[in-house]
Order: sequence, then C-alpha cells, then structure tokens
Amino acid sequence: MSAAAEIHPKTVRGVTRIARNAKAASSFLATTSTTGKDAALQAIAEALRTHTDRIVKANDADIAAGTESGMSDSLLDRLRLDADRIAAIADSVEAVIDLPDPVGDVVLGRTLPNSIRLTQTRVPMGVIGAIYEARPNVTVDIAVLALKSGNATVLRGGSAAQNTNTELISILRSAIESTGLPADTVNGIDQYGREGANVLMHARDFVDLLIPRGGAELINMVVQESIVPVIETGVGNVHMFIDSTATVKTAVDLVVNSKTQRPSVCNSLETLLVHEKAAKRVLPKILERLDQAGVIVHADSDVSALAPSSMKVRRVSRRDWAKEYLGLEIAIKLVSGIEEAIDHIRAYSSGHTEVIVTKDLDNADTFVAAIDAAAVGVNVSTRFTDGGEFGFGAEVGISTQKLHARGPMGLEQLTTTKWVMMGNGQIRS
Amino acid sequence: MSAAAEIHPKTVRGVTRIARNAKAASSFLATTSTTGKDAALQAIAEALRTHTDRIVKANDADIAAGTESGMSDSLLDRLRLDADRIAAIADSVEAVIDLPDPVGDVVLGRTLPNSIRLTQTRVPMGVIGAIYEARPNVTVDIAVLALKSGNATVLRGGSAAQNTNTELISILRSAIESTGLPADTVNGIDQYGREGANVLMHARDFVDLLIPRGGAELINMVVQESIVPVIETGVGNVHMFIDSTATVKTAVDLVVNSKTQRPSVCNSLETLLVHEKAAKRVLPKILERLDQAGVIVHADSDVSALAPSSMKVRRVSRRDWAKEYLGLEIAIKLVSGIEEAIDHIRAYSSGHTEVIVTKDLDNADTFVAAIDAAAVGVNVSTRFTDGGEFGFGAEVGISTQKLHARGPMGLEQLTTTKWVMMGNGQIRS
Repeated sequence: MSAAAEIHPKTVRGVTRIARNAKAASSFLATTSTTGKDAALQAIAEALRTHTDRIVKANDADIAAGTESGMSDSLLDRLRLDADRIAAIADSVEAVIDLPDPVGDVVLGRTLPNSIRLTQTRVPMGVIGAIYEARPNVTVDIAVLALKSGNATVLRGGSAAQNTNTELISILRSAIESTGLPADTVNGIDQYGREGANVLMHARDFVDLLIPRGGAELINMVVQESIVPVIETGVGNVHMFIDSTATVKTAVDLVVNSKTQRPSVCNSLETLLVHEKAAKRVLPKILERLDQAGVIVHADSDVSALAPSSMKVRRVSRRDWAKEYLGLEIAIKLVSGIEEAIDHIRAYSSGHTEVIVTKDLDNADTFVAAIDAAAVGVNVSTRFTDGGEFGFGAEVGISTQKLHARGPMGLEQLTTTKWVMMGNGQIRS
Repeated sequence: MSAAAEIHPKTVRGVTRIARNAKAASSFLATTSTTGKDAALQAIAEALRTHTDRIVKANDADIAAGTESGMSDSLLDRLRLDADRIAAIADSVEAVIDLPDPVGDVVLGRTLPNSIRLTQTRVPMGVIGAIYEARPNVTVDIAVLALKSGNATVLRGGSAAQNTNTELISILRSAIESTGLPADTVNGIDQYGREGANVLMHARDFVDLLIPRGGAELINMVVQESIVPVIETGVGNVHMFIDSTATVKTAVDLVVNSKTQRPSVCNSLETLLVHEKAAKRVLPKILERLDQAGVIVHADSDVSALAPSSMKVRRVSRRDWAKEYLGLEIAIKLVSGIEEAIDHIRAYSSGHTEVIVTKDLDNADTFVAAIDAAAVGVNVSTRFTDGGEFGFGAEVGISTQKLHARGPMGLEQLTTTKWVMMGNGQIRS
C-alpha cells in the first residue's frame, strides 16, 4: 500500500512492536482459566473506582480542549466521564464477570470411522484491534469483553479523547498485571495518531480481527484500507413497512417506539414505507404523534396532505432514502404494495434491521424470506435488534456483514474454533 | 484504489453488470426450495455428460495453447479434461445432490421475556466470487456447491483454461435455466482478464464473499487487493513434532504417510521437528524410508549424521522453515524439547495443521492448547485435515483464517444467518 509506505518509520516500528507484544500476550491468555480472567476483570473494576479522580482529571483536559476547539454539546457529552459514569463502567465490568466464558466450549464432537476423536473447540480469536471515535467508555468496553473471551486488544480511540484513553489504558494495564496476567493484554496506540491506525490496519501478522466502531465514514475508511479482516458494525438505515392490513394502534405504537425511543442509535427507524391503502387510516395518527415528539418528517405531498394542519412536512429527496438520520428525523413514502416495499428496501437497506407490520401471513412470510438483513421483524419495534434484548448479556456491536457474525455480537463472536484430532497412529490410505 | 481507477471503463461496466445480475439471481435462489436446487444440479450433471465432446474440444484448444507456450507437464495435467474426468465431475455433481441443504436450518431459537419469538436461521451468503488458477474442475466444483447452498457465483479462472471454462459455464447456465432457475446463477468473467478480477475484488455492493483458490501468491494478492470479504484457503506449512516418548513405529508411519501419501496438497507435512532425545532412535528409520520414497531432505549435520550412508541430505537454510514444498521435499530439525518445538511452530506455522507424536499426556495437552492452527493433531497423520475425512461430504477449501470458517469448509460455511423476530406489537421500554 502506497499510503503505508509514506508513514514515518518510527510509527511503523512503534505500532508493530505493540501489536507483536499483544500477540505474545494473547498466547498467554489463550491458556488462562476463566477464574484467572475473572480475577483480572475484578481488579479492573476496583481500579476504575479507586482511580476515579485520575480519570476525571484526564477527561477534564480533553473536555477543555474540545470546548476550546468548538466541539458540539452532543459530542462533548459523549466525551465526558464523571464519577457517576465511571461507577457505571465499573459496574458493567463486574457484569461481564457473570457472563459465561465461551472459550473451551465444544461446538462439535464425533468419533471418525478410523477412531480418531474429532472435536471442534471454541478458542480466542487472538488479538483484536479496535478503531473508534471519541467515546472513552468504548475503551473499557472492548478491552474487557475481549479479555473475558481470552483476547488481547490494540485500541485506537479518537484524538479528542486521548488524555482519557491514555489514563484508562494505564489503569487497566496495571490492574491486569497485578493479577499475574500480562499488561500487554490491553494496548493503546493513540500516541501514534492517524498514521498509527493505518499501521494497525496492515498488521496482518499480529492482528486477527479489526472492529471499527463509529459513523459510516469511519467504518467505510477501515473497510477500504484494512487488510486485517474487519467486522463492519452499526450502520443502520432501518425501514418499517406498514402493510394494508396493519391495525392503527399497532402501527402507531411501533413507528413511534422505533423512531423516538432512542433516535441516536443504529436500530432506530429511518424510513417508513406505508401501503397506499393503509395511508388514510394510519398516517394521520402517526404524523400527529411524530409531530408531538418533535420528529422532522420528509415526504411527498401525498403524505403531507394527511398531516395535521400545523405540521410542517419537508419535501423528500432521493438522498433521504439513503440517509441514516440518527436523530429525530424520518423519511416517509407511500408504496403500492409489498413488492414495491421490498424493492425499496433492497435498494436502500444497510442490512441491519427491517420490519413489516401486517396481519397477513403470506406477506409476513414473503417479507421475512425476501429481505436480506441481519434482523427481520414482524410486528415488533426495530429497537429490539440488540445483544441485551436477544439475551447475550453483553454486546460488542451489531454486525451488518455476513461473514463470521451477523447481527448483535456477543462474547462468542470474539472467538474462533480449533479442530482437535486425537488418535493413536492413524494414517490415511 | 488507484489500481481500479486505471481499469478500462468497459471492463468496469461489464464486470459490474455481471455482478449485479448475479445479485439479482441470488435473491431468486434465496427462496428456491432444496428440490428446485437439486433439479438444477441433476440437469448440470446430465448436461456435462451430454456435452462431453464440446468440453473436450474446448479443452484441447487450451492444452494446445499451453503446450505451445511451454507449460510444464504437471500444469498441463491439471488443465486437462478428458471424457473420464468429465464423467467423474458429473458424478461429483450428483453426490452434492445427496448432501443435506443447510439453508433454513434453525441455529438458535428462543422466546424472549416479552414473547417475541426469536430464531437465528441459516440463509445463503448471496453472491460468491472465486478467483482460481488453471484447474477447470474448480469451475464446476464451486458453482455447484454454491448453488446447493443457495448462492450465485462469479467465477474468474486462469487465462490458460479460458476456452474450457467458457464452455463449462455456458453448459451450466443452459442446464440451470432449463429447470426454471436464473442462468445468472453462474457467471464467468474470464473474458475481462486480470482487470476483470480487480473489478470483482472491489464489487462490494454485489459480492458477499470472495474465495481465492491457488498458490500462496494468488491468495496473498487477493487478500491485499480485495475490499470484498475474503476467506483465505489452503496455504499449509505443516509441522510434525516427534516427542522423546514417541514409539519408532508410530513416528515412522505418521511421518511417511504425512509426507508421501499425496505430497502436492496443503495438508501434507513440510517440516519435521524431532526431540533430540528421540533422534537416534527414530531418525535412522525415518530417513531411510523417506530416502526410499524419493524425498529430498533438508537438514543440519546433526540429522544427516543419522542418514543411510548412500543418502544425500541437503544443507537446510532459514528459508526452508518458511517453505511449503508441495512435493517430495522435507525440512528436518532437532529441538531440545516441546518448548522449542512450539516456538518454532509459532514462528513459521501458516495456521493449517500441526501434529505432535507423543506418549506423554501433559505434552499432548500442552501442544493442543499452545498451538494456534485450524487443526491440531495428536498421534495422527497430518493428511486428515480434510472435509471428506471430517464427514462434511464436500469441501470448498480449507480455511487458514480465523474469521467465519476455520479448517475444512463445507456447504454450511457458504451460508450466513438471519435473525427473525416474530411479535404482535411489542415495543421497547
């Protein structure tokens, strides 16, 4: 890669050395017992509580720099760590201790005709790289989920959170080391800036999996640039189709919940498709409720004609269909039936979550079979595509790709398998 | 990618159109029943038999061109399709009919506390791209395994097999279409040459998975260049460690079988590590048998001193440790114990298959736990890492990566999953 060739040799050497050390730590972790990993997690939770003041002080420096550089209030809020938030992070680390450790699970076991005993056993992935934006809680989140599943991490957070992340990583490393595990279980490369991230994306000999967490632009950059295998997470251009048979109450409840319950996350609704035969029945109430909730609606005149007279509906453009608003905005389109709904979704879906609201069994079946997404729902809020809701206990992210993990990723998705063949001298004839 | 930008627009348009058509066909295949897919496979088997003469004629042209350009005998042999080989391919297509279809299998099903019925269901991957070298049987092989698992394919074979592949793909498309499935289920892009392969590697909107099949150079090129997710297959720098407690008979049998039973394949043995305390006991016999089998041995004088006087042992160099000979050659090294054996394997393993020969339970456990490879064996030939031996029925390749599939890949590894949420109006609170 030409891009890599222009990077300062010191950065290449520094990040490569860190990745190599992480690989060595991962060999140690691969044979560490669950008890040993849980002790390290407990030490991390306690260290976060003990050193709350240090973390807040480092975070204050980041907040001050962010304020000075004109960072928006919502970004400053994501960047901020106060004592309450740190206590919540420490609690979440303890919650991970209670999760079952997937390492060592036997996925498949059989005795072959030649008496070789064959088992497919779950093992850690090895070294997990993460590239993310200015939410310092992600640093602890990924480090501890990776540790529980026996993996070492190399973390690249946003430069805006560099002081906080450096402090957090230092605290985590000391806590881990105090229990006898290698400090190199958790590693930061923020000091190497963007070029460091580039080296990480090419460290195929040492990094087994790279997880980008953030907006579509960050994820797309990593997908384009990385030669380390990547799991894409989190871009959700989520649709709901209200079929002609949907009841008003269900349609209204599901649209309002899907759009407004937590609009900033990837499983919130972005485009609503309404069967033209249901429009007069369901849309006036839906538009009224969206208006009350402060949702900006983008639609054509066939939709705006059904809006309360006081409501301002914005003219929809082609770009809206492709847009993940991640806020109190929605695009609405009338469709002639399920075929047009499916065609629209196929054209614009990001493969995250797609839902149909219907009373018709055939249409429910058709929708579920035809839509190619991580999660497809019938008569449910789009907000249910979530590791916690699915019963995973913890969530690393929501994969929108088809390889390895699709949908909410729990600890199991941070592992791979190893085939073990036990014999007594069998040869192949 | 600058490389892609220099490609002729006609190639970009042509390959993109083919990939888009394959995507459309994959939507059709995703909802095609097993019966429907099996009928297409039966039609393919019959068409291959009916049109044997056409295939042989096209293959003759490739063979003639290969002979003229000075292709080696072994490459010509891999390129050749005669009536017997075509009959064997047709039989293998019928064998795929008998395999269970993984699509629709429910991987996980549960009812959530809010009564949403959640199922994780196996679905086809979508469009599978394959880039391979001059073995035209791979064309049929990948096309039919992908079809059985509900996937469309875009195939790029070697230019040396272009006439044969074009004929095969034409026959497959007609046979598939005759049963009512889309001809675009199987697509070739050989007419666009290497630049076509480059466009395929960037067709992320249409291609879900890319499988390179061939030598290390081809695989490495695809890994470096592709932004479509790749599964690496087949590079096997395979080791066997003879521990101090190994019996002579078992050690000799396993080494000879692992090295000589089929030396050209990825699961054959490349480097033998021998505990220095076992060397005098096991090596004379091993070296004698390897010599009889015509195996060239690369080793230091500590090994060659134990060889039959008539045997010529070549001086081993550092490069031999990293080399996949894929022929009747082997590197041999004495090690001080299991730790040195593990260190050597960690340094040079390609993550395919690693075997220990021992009577010691602790060492067996240590080896299995410490070695990071798709398959780890105790007292077995390395040749058992194979989809057929593992009971998969068919094998797409042997993955040496950790993401999605590790070890032999069967039909299941050509699928992904979809989460289906069935409810009756549930919202999230």
